[in-house]
Amino acid sequence: MTVVTREHALVEQIKEWTDGRFIGDDCAVLPGQQLVTADTLVEGTHFLRALSSLEDIGWKSVAVNLSDIAAMAGRPRYLVVCLTLPRVFSKEQFNRLYSGIIDCANTYKVRIVGGDLTSGPILVVNVTAIGDVHESGCMLRSRAKPGEIVVVTGNFGASTAGLWHLKQSQLTSSKPSAPRFLHCSEIHRRPKPKIAEAWSLVKQTNGQGALMDASDGLADALAQISRASGVGMDIDLQRIPIHIETARLASDARVNAYDWALYGGEDYELVGCVPEAVWESWVNDHDSSENPFTAIGRVTNSGSVQLRIGSKKGPELDIAKCFQQIGF
Amino acid sequence: MTVVTREHALVEQIKEWTDGRFIGDDCAVLPGQQLVTADTLVEGTHFLRALSSLEDIGWKSVAVNLSDIAAMAGRPRYLVVCLTLPRVFSKEQFNRLYSGIIDCANTYKVRIVGGDLTSGPILVVNVTAIGDVHESGCMLRSRAKPGEIVVVTGNFGASTAGLWHLKQSQLTSSKPSAPRFLHCSEIHRRPKPKIAEAWSLVKQTNGQGALMDASDGLADALAQISRASGVGMDIDLQRIPIHIETARLASDARVNAYDWALYGGEDYELVGCVPEAVWESWVNDHDSSENPFTAIGRVTNSGSVQLRIGSKKGPELDIAKCFQQIGF
Repeated sequence: MTVVTREHALVEQIKEWTDGRFIGDDCAVLPGQQLVTADTLVEGTHFLRALSSLEDIGWKSVAVNLSDIAAMAGRPRYLVVCLTLPRVFSKEQFNRLYSGIIDCANTYKVRIVGGDLTSGPILVVNVTAIGDVHESGCMLRSRAKPGEIVVVTGNFGASTAGLWHLKQSQLTSSKPSAPRFLHCSEIHRRPKPKIAEAWSLVKQTNGQGALMDASDGLADALAQISRASGVGMDIDLQRIPIHIETARLASDARVNAYDWALYGGEDYELVGCVPEAVWESWVNDHDSSENPFTAIGRVTNSGSVQLRIGSKKGPELDIAKCFQQIGF
Repeated sequence: MTVVTREHALVEQIKEWTDGRFIGDDCAVLPGQQLVTADTLVEGTHFLRALSSLEDIGWKSVAVNLSDIAAMAGRPRYLVVCLTLPRVFSKEQFNRLYSGIIDCANTYKVRIVGGDLTSGPILVVNVTAIGDVHESGCMLRSRAKPGEIVVVTGNFGASTAGLWHLKQSQLTSSKPSAPRFLHCSEIHRRPKPKIAEAWSLVKQTNGQGALMDASDGLADALAQISRASGVGMDIDLQRIPIHIETARLASDARVNAYDWALYGGEDYELVGCVPEAVWESWVNDHDSSENPFTAIGRVTNSGSVQLRIGSKKGPELDIAKCFQQIGF
């Protein structure tokens, strides 16, 4: 076990203090095949009100929790929404925040069943999501097996690129500029939990293989699955999907786009491991055009995540670079 | 419907925006007879670190949620614990906070199944509790009927008295003084959710009558039950239990002890309405010594809560004086 951050160390401590069997995946799996997860967004830590609208903050607070349910291929059902509102916060601001919450809840057909309202010095949005295990099975982090194919949804680094772009736009212009880099901005502002994608995967695998979301970075997800499953991975950097906007913004920022893709976090894409026969049959199926996953490597028994670039050795994975928002 | 605070108005707004049928009691009742509730404790709003130890803050963050489950006579099962930790917060401080959380969870036999850890400018503790409806029934706020007996557990005003005492002790002494007013201090620092008391009630009523907790003040609880049930109440102030320490501290503070009892809040006692025949039979039963409730009045069809002092008219109830911590 490698503890890479203080937060990881505290979660390990909590697992020791509690019976621990519920802790360590994106959601807790309760008796009755129920999934529970919670995430807090704190002003100044997870968002800046200068860069995100209140509607977007509301949306994101729900989306990040639905992404945790998607990470286990579950069906989200209910939300509990706790808001700590700044003491100066108008009814109109409250309406805008809550409209984003409701917009995301309605989009993914989940019901707000309760919560609380308190006041404090800053805006804090805490959401608990409750869902059901999918009838085809429950995808855990801990079931990856050597030989399986490592697959991902969407593309990586876009949220970090979007954040960089939004910050630059604010620095360089006093007026709102024409919308540019819409893909990256939208991914950052309103991440989409990959619920349908997770269901299509679990229907193929019947719960075999492994799954989690890449909320804390692709590198973190690969390392977490490897650690939980006691396996390694062989990942081809060239096969990690990167959007053209992300590549352009990384170039503008003089950053390696793969650094954003691996370590940026907040993309809320899925990272899974699928038995090779299942993957082959899915790819060769007449419905493969509906397959939302891309293969980026293979599970190994090496015990660590190795990166390559095509046939050449790639850089070392450095988990400490990952975004620090630790759920347990 | 009387909206007495901005927070109440916002909850009414949320009920309009959502389907609303889950919102308005201490917990949401989900299909499958499951109860869910959440509460946030914010530094500076709900506690001051100068007056409460981290262990006490941890205990209280769990206890207030278990009290919401008790308020519907439910069986608490699981907790999700989300902590926003100040950026300067040592491992030893974390251990102390979490030991209070675990202490309360273990005392009431509930399991911590997940949560998250984030950082922020202040300490915020958010707990979601999940439980089951009691096999004898689910106690709601909305089922009080004229003629029923209004009953309460414990005594009222003790938490406010305890807080006043702790503040005074801090103001008047630079050294820790010998423990005094232990009942009130303990009620303030480590409130005890009245779970066993709620179960004994629901076994007697089989779910008839009404129940809630008095977390926002006895006056608030009486008004909420009246409003939700479309009834009134006739309450005899002299029968509201007040601890001798509370009376002494109120006298020292030159406050009417009934003001603390009615409006102080944070006592986490239960307030219920019980059919008269059920109450009579319980009181006359050979086990009545185990009855933890005291009768303080009767449900009426007047539509409002009337206070009297023995046979004389009492003061008007002023809900706006109640403690403002609004769950929904």
